[in-house]
Amino acid sequence: MTTILPSYVEDAWWMPADEADATPVRDASTGELVTSISTRGLDLAAVLEHARTIGQASLGALTFHQRALLLKQFALALTERKEELYELSARTGATRRDAAIDVDGGIGVLFTYGSKGRRELPNATVYVDGPPEALSADGSFLGQHVYTRLPGVAVQINAFNFPVWGPLEKFAPAFLAGVPTLVKPATPTAYLTEGWVRILVDSGLLPAGTLSLVSGAVPELFEHLRLGDLVAFTGSASTADRLRSHDAVQTGGVRFTSETDSLNASVLGPDAVAGTPEFDAYVAQLVTELTAKAGQKCTAIRRAIVPIDRVDAVVEAVRARLDARVVLGDPRTEGVTLGPLASLAQRDEVRRQVAALQAAGGRIAIGDVGDPVGARAEGAFLAPIVLTFDDPDASAAHDVEAFGPVASVLGYDGLADAARLVARGGGSLVTSLATHDPAVAVALAAAIAPYNGRLLVLDRDDARTSTGHGSPVPHLVHGGPGRAGGGEELGGIRAVLHHMQRTAIQGSPTMLTALTGVWHPGAPTDAGRHPFRKSLAELRLGDRVASGSRTVSLDDIETFAAFTGDTFYAHMDEEAAAANPFFPGRVAHGYLLVSWAAGLFVDPEPGPVLANSGLENLRFVTPVSPGDAIRVELTAKQITPRETDDYGEVRWDAVLRNQRDEVVATYDVLTLVAKQPVTA
Amino acid sequence: MTTILPSYVEDAWWMPADEADATPVRDASTGELVTSISTRGLDLAAVLEHARTIGQASLGALTFHQRALLLKQFALALTERKEELYELSARTGATRRDAAIDVDGGIGVLFTYGSKGRRELPNATVYVDGPPEALSADGSFLGQHVYTRLPGVAVQINAFNFPVWGPLEKFAPAFLAGVPTLVKPATPTAYLTEGWVRILVDSGLLPAGTLSLVSGAVPELFEHLRLGDLVAFTGSASTADRLRSHDAVQTGGVRFTSETDSLNASVLGPDAVAGTPEFDAYVAQLVTELTAKAGQKCTAIRRAIVPIDRVDAVVEAVRARLDARVVLGDPRTEGVTLGPLASLAQRDEVRRQVAALQAAGGRIAIGDVGDPVGARAEGAFLAPIVLTFDDPDASAAHDVEAFGPVASVLGYDGLADAARLVARGGGSLVTSLATHDPAVAVALAAAIAPYNGRLLVLDRDDARTSTGHGSPVPHLVHGGPGRAGGGEELGGIRAVLHHMQRTAIQGSPTMLTALTGVWHPGAPTDAGRHPFRKSLAELRLGDRVASGSRTVSLDDIETFAAFTGDTFYAHMDEEAAAANPFFPGRVAHGYLLVSWAAGLFVDPEPGPVLANSGLENLRFVTPVSPGDAIRVELTAKQITPRETDDYGEVRWDAVLRNQRDEVVATYDVLTLVAKQPVTA
Repeated sequence: MTTILPSYVEDAWWMPADEADATPVRDASTGELVTSISTRGLDLAAVLEHARTIGQASLGALTFHQRALLLKQFALALTERKEELYELSARTGATRRDAAIDVDGGIGVLFTYGSKGRRELPNATVYVDGPPEALSADGSFLGQHVYTRLPGVAVQINAFNFPVWGPLEKFAPAFLAGVPTLVKPATPTAYLTEGWVRILVDSGLLPAGTLSLVSGAVPELFEHLRLGDLVAFTGSASTADRLRSHDAVQTGGVRFTSETDSLNASVLGPDAVAGTPEFDAYVAQLVTELTAKAGQKCTAIRRAIVPIDRVDAVVEAVRARLDARVVLGDPRTEGVTLGPLASLAQRDEVRRQVAALQAAGGRIAIGDVGDPVGARAEGAFLAPIVLTFDDPDASAAHDVEAFGPVASVLGYDGLADAARLVARGGGSLVTSLATHDPAVAVALAAAIAPYNGRLLVLDRDDARTSTGHGSPVPHLVHGGPGRAGGGEELGGIRAVLHHMQRTAIQGSPTMLTALTGVWHPGAPTDAGRHPFRKSLAELRLGDRVASGSRTVSLDDIETFAAFTGDTFYAHMDEEAAAANPFFPGRVAHGYLLVSWAAGLFVDPEPGPVLANSGLENLRFVTPVSPGDAIRVELTAKQITPRETDDYGEVRWDAVLRNQRDEVVATYDVLTLVAKQPVTA
Repeated sequence: MTTILPSYVEDAWWMPADEADATPVRDASTGELVTSISTRGLDLAAVLEHARTIGQASLGALTFHQRALLLKQFALALTERKEELYELSARTGATRRDAAIDVDGGIGVLFTYGSKGRRELPNATVYVDGPPEALSADGSFLGQHVYTRLPGVAVQINAFNFPVWGPLEKFAPAFLAGVPTLVKPATPTAYLTEGWVRILVDSGLLPAGTLSLVSGAVPELFEHLRLGDLVAFTGSASTADRLRSHDAVQTGGVRFTSETDSLNASVLGPDAVAGTPEFDAYVAQLVTELTAKAGQKCTAIRRAIVPIDRVDAVVEAVRARLDARVVLGDPRTEGVTLGPLASLAQRDEVRRQVAALQAAGGRIAIGDVGDPVGARAEGAFLAPIVLTFDDPDASAAHDVEAFGPVASVLGYDGLADAARLVARGGGSLVTSLATHDPAVAVALAAAIAPYNGRLLVLDRDDARTSTGHGSPVPHLVHGGPGRAGGGEELGGIRAVLHHMQRTAIQGSPTMLTALTGVWHPGAPTDAGRHPFRKSLAELRLGDRVASGSRTVSLDDIETFAAFTGDTFYAHMDEEAAAANPFFPGRVAHGYLLVSWAAGLFVDPEPGPVLANSGLENLRFVTPVSPGDAIRVELTAKQITPRETDDYGEVRWDAVLRNQRDEVVATYDVLTLVAKQPVTA
């Protein structure tokens, strides 16, 4: 480790000219100096402008799929060198298990976005949101929502507790959206963030200007931000409030989202009496949340809300499990399961908050705030602490957070009371409920869901497979209302869209087709060469086949019924069909119609169309009676070449009409089509 | 009209005890006293608490569909008495055409939400967002996002310009979400808001506690708000900034959204030279935006951005059209097409802003700020004003808004310059472009979309049917970044969700089924009586039919090909099929599989199942070769009874497997099913 931790800006490593004012950073267990950090002399405005110009240009040249592929490659590069990150993690006080949450969790986010980006986004740069809206009777004026990337920088201000996962869970969706990132790590663990940034830089995979790292304080940061930039903050509620009040956010249009350390709750259901699997799972989860990362998680359980007559039983079960399983010490020592806090300053802060809880009526039922027996004085060690309150409504229990291995056990009297206590947290990242009774889960969820970003229901069916109260997963949103910061991160593609602007676009079908990359009915079509003869290299939006018509006879209906076994009365029984509110009498099977449509539009010879992979949004609009004739128009609607295969998806707009030109059915046909002409 | 305008609170009309401090409100054309407003003595805390308790309870007892039906009934009640609203509108200075935008526009929002609520939302109280996410390999632990309504009050603070449409476009989505509304109208036109509230109250349709009207100032409003409440503000950017800075928003978790008077732009494309339909449409739209509502629209065009060599041509064309078409006067006078501003105070304000524009280099090319010839002095009359600037970069042109019949014409030099000028507005509600060249539209949109909530492309194809630059439609979002307030309203169901909290729910399939109202794979099933024999009264989530298996032969494939005409090579040509990357050789048609599946799961006798209405999300997963045997499981997944029909939708989960238990295809089958057993 260098004496001063470098920054990575304008695509180069940067060091301050001298060490004056540099802040020392120490090993959490030994107090040994690890490095110092400083940004003295950094030209932050130039760093941001480099990202806004070079970084935006780099990402603008890539599609969603290309960016997603890079994320996967970043994940592979980090995986290859992750032992280096584990070694650095130990210095922050993290046990091996803690480091896995941070390091493997962070890499997992990259893999998830690498995969979701290619499965759930188009291979394009604009994201189309929802169906088109008809705004004129004749179809000449339509509306459509699209998302385009923000034109600025995604600035992330991180907490000290997850120096790998924290920045990566913000970086992945920003990168996928096409927005360059500036990472500002927290001082106590900034060297671990520098560790993964260095691996990515070394990999040579990072497009120019897309990732900057500022190792050190940036007090004037917000002065340099403007409309088009966004800030994602993780940390204390009070710091979030201070940053959010800056003019750049309040009047300048800079987007600000925050994820703050809320007082998350875990409710023990009335049915989860001692001896049930739910009781055991509840206690095990509570102990995990007390000890993982030494309780330094924004998502940790701070309030165990249990039936009033079960407070003592829960405390005793927690005590027994802590005694049996938890060994406090330097994480580099064999057998240690609970490391120190991140720094001595952090331990002092936790002790202050525990004192505040005690002053408000909290009694320490487990543990104490003193130096643990046998622990070295230079380390930020603290044993787990569980408090109880005679008055579960004591305000401090719901708004004072001790950001360490500390939780309060509060008694409730009935489900409504439990819900009320959960809501007293003023908004949380997550609440878990241990219950095997769906009625309990439904009643509680209806009352507490609007106060939570995430709810986890723990019972015998998922206790073994649950990812846990405290673990955000990239597939689901992370964030919460009120005290939890009011923000939303992750949640798969949702987080990508948070880095983009939703805009309603109005215009003619031709214009909307050009602006969205999706063919809109009414836009030009080309019914020349059969589109099944065209590879992706030749196929264009609007390429169409318009079939001849084919008349359906009663005989056809009976043949189809006999062949498929589908003798539903609407097809077979004239009287019963006519009695049905939708049919004039016996009608053709819907599946007959789509099967015939395929027969009408298909070009059967071997060629670039490889397979029918699916069908979407099929609606049967007008019934088809014997004697009616159907025809189909199939039009290339969206073309999505794959980056790593020699084919891609083509979505076709299919419309079936009858001899009166009435729409019989509409749907999208999904096919796989080769990129290049197939040579037989 | 009463001397003092009443409020409607706690489900009763309320009047202040005396007229002290009451603010007089005057007719915009004549200066005549219309009414006075005052909230002296109002117990605002009690009003809000009534909404939070009684109003939340009323709406909580209704499903989305029931609320949507009420919105439709509200629309019908207002339509019946809309002449009363037109009469009141004239007093605000609105011409008949202006009043139509406000009155019919507002009623239209109710109709749209009444319709969309029933078509696009489940008949339930929870909205399921996106597909479930598998979080464990064995399927025992899943994630799913849901939206639940906010537990508070939707407070709306309105601008004076749309006293009907403005409050209704906020009320409709709040009501549909299940959140009661408190309406705070703007003083100059509060009596028109009272007018429509009175019609709704008179109708007897309003559920208790769901709508409150506070006619008058509420300076202490934010002191009474808390987590779970939200504020939707429309008005000036400076007021929005002041309100947003309140602690209730900054740290208290109250949601705040604003829609402010931005400096919207309209760009004349390089191709739109004089004489083209696009040039004419551009000028016509500019004149409409100058004069509709006397230019008092948040969405009006303030910046006409035109090729530098076409500034004069545009000004002259605007002048000619104004001369030919615009008659200024009291809107109650026959032939008048441009009414007064809303008040003398408002006119003073516009004159101040025009002076600021002049001081910054603006030259008045059309009109003047003096009293129009022949207009009576008591009326707030002002003739249309068009300014030009030698320096199109003059800051004032991009940030000083004259909220009246005022616009600036600015010259640009190249598309990049045009985009840069649009962005200088710092975020707008809407920008329109007049071009017939898709390449121009694409290039401009990519650069300016992130600075706009809405983009309208005007050309010869949609000029006649366009709803217009300045007209938000309920289907599309209304709002914009930065100077436009950073908020988002309307946009169909999107606005409903803005009144709800998104929460990620994790748990077992059984729990997720209970919490979402959607059956999740792995949750209990009942394969007893065939579910096609059950009406909605009897059908339950998880009711299932598991079919026997049926073997596919080459003969079947050939029969199907002959019957449907679908002789695609993958089914007919062993060699070509085997050369395809996905197939081992000839395979069964996908449509054969779904047709057979229907034959396997259907119960053919007349009964409660009325029709197969569609199919969604079909994916073919594993090819089926001759000799393979398929079977299907069909499980009731979601049940949506209709409010106004004696049937509803049932969505079925369909899974086809082969003899090796591999999944062959998955999809959702949509059916219509009777609510009650069908008696033959």
